[in-house]
Amino acid sequence: MATKIEGIFTPHVVPLDAQGNICEAELRRYIEWLIGKGVHGLYPNGSTGEFVRFSPDERRRIVRIVCDQAAGRVPVLAGAAEANARETIATCETYTEYGARAVAIVSPYYYRLSPESVYAYFREIARNSPIDVTLYNIPMFASPIDVPTIRRLAEFDRIVGIKDSSGDLPFMMRMIRDVRPIRPDFVFLSGWEPVLVPMFLIGCDGGTNAISGVVPELTRRLFDLVRAGQIAEAMTLQYRLLELFDAMLYSADFPEGFRAGVELRGFAVGQSRQPMSDTQRIDRAALQRVLQCILSESGYVEPPAEGCPPRTGSIDRDRVAQITANVVHELRQRGVL
Amino acid sequence: MATKIEGIFTPHVVPLDAQGNICEAELRRYIEWLIGKGVHGLYPNGSTGEFVRFSPDERRRIVRIVCDQAAGRVPVLAGAAEANARETIATCETYTEYGARAVAIVSPYYYRLSPESVYAYFREIARNSPIDVTLYNIPMFASPIDVPTIRRLAEFDRIVGIKDSSGDLPFMMRMIRDVRPIRPDFVFLSGWEPVLVPMFLIGCDGGTNAISGVVPELTRRLFDLVRAGQIAEAMTLQYRLLELFDAMLYSADFPEGFRAGVELRGFAVGQSRQPMSDTQRIDRAALQRVLQCILSESGYVEPPAEGCPPRTGSIDRDRVAQITANVVHELRQRGVL
Amino acid sequence: MATKIEGIFTPHVVPLDAQGNICEAELRRYIEWLIGKGVHGLYPNGSTGEFVRFSPDERRRIVRIVCDQAAGRVPVLAGAAEANARETIATCETYTEYGARAVAIVSPYYYRLSPESVYAYFREIARNSPIDVTLYNIPMFASPIDVPTIRRLAEFDRIVGIKDSSGDLPFMMRMIRDVRPIRPDFVFLSGWEPVLVPMFLIGCDGGTNAISGVVPELTRRLFDLVRAGQIAEAMTLQYRLLELFDAMLYSADFPEGFRAGVELRGFAVGQSRQPMSDTQRIDRAALQRVLQCILSESGYVEPPAEGCPPRTGSIDRDRVAQITANVVHELRQRGVL
Amino acid sequence: MATKIEGIFTPHVVPLDAQGNICEAELRRYIEWLIGKGVHGLYPNGSTGEFVRFSPDERRRIVRIVCDQAAGRVPVLAGAAEANARETIATCETYTEYGARAVAIVSPYYYRLSPESVYAYFREIARNSPIDVTLYNIPMFASPIDVPTIRRLAEFDRIVGIKDSSGDLPFMMRMIRDVRPIRPDFVFLSGWEPVLVPMFLIGCDGGTNAISGVVPELTRRLFDLVRAGQIAEAMTLQYRLLELFDAMLYSADFPEGFRAGVELRGFAVGQSRQPMSDTQRIDRAALQRVLQCILSESGYVEPPAEGCPPRTGSIDRDRVAQITANVVHELRQRGVL
Repeated sequence: MATKIEGIFTPHVVPLDAQGNICEAELRRYIEWLIGKGVHGLYPNGSTGEFVRFSPDERRRIVRIVCDQAAGRVPVLAGAAEANARETIATCETYTEYGARAVAIVSPYYYRLSPESVYAYFREIARNSPIDVTLYNIPMFASPIDVPTIRRLAEFDRIVGIKDSSGDLPFMMRMIRDVRPIRPDFVFLSGWEPVLVPMFLIGCDGGTNAISGVVPELTRRLFDLVRAGQIAEAMTLQYRLLELFDAMLYSADFPEGFRAGVELRGFAVGQSRQPMSDTQRIDRAALQRVLQCILSESGYVEPPAEGCPPRTGSIDRDRVAQITANVVHELRQRGVL
Repeated sequence: MATKIEGIFTPHVVPLDAQGNICEAELRRYIEWLIGKGVHGLYPNGSTGEFVRFSPDERRRIVRIVCDQAAGRVPVLAGAAEANARETIATCETYTEYGARAVAIVSPYYYRLSPESVYAYFREIARNSPIDVTLYNIPMFASPIDVPTIRRLAEFDRIVGIKDSSGDLPFMMRMIRDVRPIRPDFVFLSGWEPVLVPMFLIGCDGGTNAISGVVPELTRRLFDLVRAGQIAEAMTLQYRLLELFDAMLYSADFPEGFRAGVELRGFAVGQSRQPMSDTQRIDRAALQRVLQCILSESGYVEPPAEGCPPRTGSIDRDRVAQITANVVHELRQRGVL
Repeated sequence: MATKIEGIFTPHVVPLDAQGNICEAELRRYIEWLIGKGVHGLYPNGSTGEFVRFSPDERRRIVRIVCDQAAGRVPVLAGAAEANARETIATCETYTEYGARAVAIVSPYYYRLSPESVYAYFREIARNSPIDVTLYNIPMFASPIDVPTIRRLAEFDRIVGIKDSSGDLPFMMRMIRDVRPIRPDFVFLSGWEPVLVPMFLIGCDGGTNAISGVVPELTRRLFDLVRAGQIAEAMTLQYRLLELFDAMLYSADFPEGFRAGVELRGFAVGQSRQPMSDTQRIDRAALQRVLQCILSESGYVEPPAEGCPPRTGSIDRDRVAQITANVVHELRQRGVL
Repeated sequence: MATKIEGIFTPHVVPLDAQGNICEAELRRYIEWLIGKGVHGLYPNGSTGEFVRFSPDERRRIVRIVCDQAAGRVPVLAGAAEANARETIATCETYTEYGARAVAIVSPYYYRLSPESVYAYFREIARNSPIDVTLYNIPMFASPIDVPTIRRLAEFDRIVGIKDSSGDLPFMMRMIRDVRPIRPDFVFLSGWEPVLVPMFLIGCDGGTNAISGVVPELTRRLFDLVRAGQIAEAMTLQYRLLELFDAMLYSADFPEGFRAGVELRGFAVGQSRQPMSDTQRIDRAALQRVLQCILSESGYVEPPAEGCPPRTGSIDRDRVAQITANVVHELRQRGVL
């Protein structure tokens, strides 16, 4: 039986060469690095991977390279949305051959479809796909998938989970509440890094997070901290990731800031296919400083020579200590310790 | 020199056969009918034409067929947006060869880009396209193009106009006010049929309107009425078109209602590529009734046997008469009559 | 029988003295000026009049002063919304005594109510008000009133019209289409000045427009031009008003720009009750220039010494001439001339 | 020195008698019950308390009654927003005399003000209020307060905290991150119950939650669980509260569902001042069932005779056990146990 999809999957960028074509060597080197840093899985052709800016042939090539490089060491969740249901299904077949663990299919975009049409679209795919399907809800960019629709779609065995990038906690809770009872194996992934820890705490199985392509060691650590019940530490790290996330998200149109972040980690990602005007420049020096400070705080790199701003974390240490003491007290009262 | 783009261009649907493939014969027959009914131009690969649901090859084939069938009798404004600027430019070259009058390029979609990125995208195309370009602003579905951006883009000779589907009159007025002084030849087309007459009155040169694919004789008549200064009559017709527009827009996810409308005019458009659920059914009988009543009112067809609801038009006849009298009075005072 | 409400009503500002209290003398002088400039009616306690920033007692005093000053020369449409239905009804009684022609009642604000609650609120008032009521729809600030709700409310004789500030033309058309057949006397007023001429052309009876408190002679002229069928001239003036409107709307938080405009016409309006920060300053010099240029164009004042920017109006003169010629041709064909 | 504001404050409803007037006896009885159930504080004149539907005199009377009844046993956070800054400041003085601990002042509503105007408004109040002020951000109903503005306002000693009802976790994190370093005593309260536990985990000091007026024992318990580090139990309770919250929020226009909830706990709240139409009826039986099941689950009341739906909680017990084991393991490794 297929392994459960869980943990943090990386929706990675695609390095381009000077001609704007896919740079296979650098893509392979980057994938290798991500696996080495402990990502739980890979997610080619996501929004971060700019799937809409590649041709159908290029999208297939990207998945082929990634599956080949991963070589079964980590699962691949391949973005498979094409122009229409028929071509999407054909692509699902191709990705099955390539060895993907599952596909992720974004809700129809451009047009804003009604829930009924969103349902019909995914039902058509669920009935015909030879590979497990995870739904991809990103209401900022595509037709929203609402709770009743996800519940109806969970009746198809082929649909095994949902990745939600709304960042809406109550929405996620309502989905979990309505779907888990009828499909205990259904997987919930959050694609919104500012609330990763809260998402894990309400029961998410993992995430697909662009930031994990820039600081895979930190997202892995955050995940492990939560699993180990070290919520306060995880939350402190969450604050650091928010800072980095904001720096990359608001420095340029998405995903350009994340591409700059990957470049700062040592990969030549090349110029985006989306042209930039003369005044558009990411302040790479500022981004580098934020990045280095965050990584050095966790001991991954040396702090910058000029030092880092003081960390006056919002979670005060006293409270962490107090909570810890309370936990122990509670556990003792229950006879666990 | 190329003729000016003006009048009502039809963003037409694409008939599909039972296998979901383009039905060339029916497409040609439909194009022929549209030309016969007096449309000023044709607009393949628009939102109505579901360009995002076809493959790049199919999109090219659609334009080839339409240009071939039109054979120079009416200009073709071909939707040319592809996955990225490079491929869009390549497609512009192809459509030049096919004989298109110009291309229409929708603002980047999926991601919501900043004005600066929208500018950079169109600048790249303007610098490399061998064919005239009209911008396509449809903020409901794609990154919005704002007034300062349109003004900057109007500095490129290759960019000859804009099609705006926001339906926002003051926005259109601000564009016209800012662009006409520096580019008197720049073309403004409205893609929002509920306000066509007002759009013409504020100075638009034409429209690209899905409804003209269903009732081309009525949109042509509306345009001619405005040109003849018969505003009150045009406005009465505008009210009728609003009714029909609402019936088609709100009966199903766009553009399914318009596809049903085309079918009622005698063309086999086939099933959409967007799957429908079991409960999704357009009430074709109701739509047929609205359509027939509107067409019969203008004398194009017989009214339905069961009759039409009374037309208690909002523009009362007395006011029209009064305005007419005032116009005459005014003209006499000025010595024109 | 009461006269029909039509034409342009002025939602006027309230001059304040140095202590922030209502300055009755200046308010009376301003009202007198407005009447002298030809406004069709007065509208105290509108959004422009900052009704929410006055106490219930102050609101009553404002209406009393305005009714007294108008002295029956022009009708007064008094904003009567209070904290709840009961107090609103009591205020309706008071305004009846003051001699108001009708009251305008904004849809409930702060909470965003459902259509059913909006209906219940106005029904309660309609059943108990001793004075004619016009509904006030301003979805930007208050609970929206939708088309089915307005249709249901039109069944109450006491409700005689609606003022809509959405600026949404198709929405207004849908209201007119649905309500006129059952209530031919129902009044439709537009509160959105950028589309006044189009609103009149689709059948509106008048407007309630803040800009008429600044340039009452121009809004009156625009109204008269439309009534006289001089659409092209009206539209040229519409473009000028848009420029002035934008200058006042975007120079500061509403209605501060309009208060500055009134001041430039010679009235001491005083400081707003909404505090301003140190960096908030309206560029009164720039606003003055726009205002003077627009007024001088119509011959009301001398142009500024430094001159005005050239008017490269969007409605070219040739088209106006052509439309006029067509109108004459049309009228001759019909035997009217 | 004044005690710090923390814990869950109850924005309570105001019971009305048959004539729609404040029912003082029932209000006192209700306040007494809330204190008995362990609420940390009281919050009259909040959105739940329908402050906009009372007259200025009534609002003062409500605060007077509540302060009197509380008699210092729990702090009172009194909603003090009036028509303008001057009257708001006067009301702050009155509430100081009544013995309120602090006031809560909603951002200006009706108009949507710019950040600069929001700043100016609160600065004016901060400079003149004799009582501590907490800001109230509820972007759904009033002008939003953004992060830079809150940071600037935190420079005034008189402003001691913010209540945020956006439910936006990253927004709260950004506020905490930017304000805590300069004002360690600044209080952050969340007004959005679906995410209470996550809000506490990111560092919030408390909440002001309508639901605590219906099930004060449960919100108190949730707060205590978090303080004791029992996150998994708290989260399970959070899921239950979400269910109840949804039932009250979506059964009617806010806050009618919450008023029904209070009634089910044994208080005669009377009819709302917002009229209801004939078809508007809250399904009190359904709400009663949800309420009783949730309360019985925690042992506060007997379950309903017909039983409750099975609780297939989203946080599976195994994971809770595993997290607990991990915590113990971690603590042992650190030498804490």
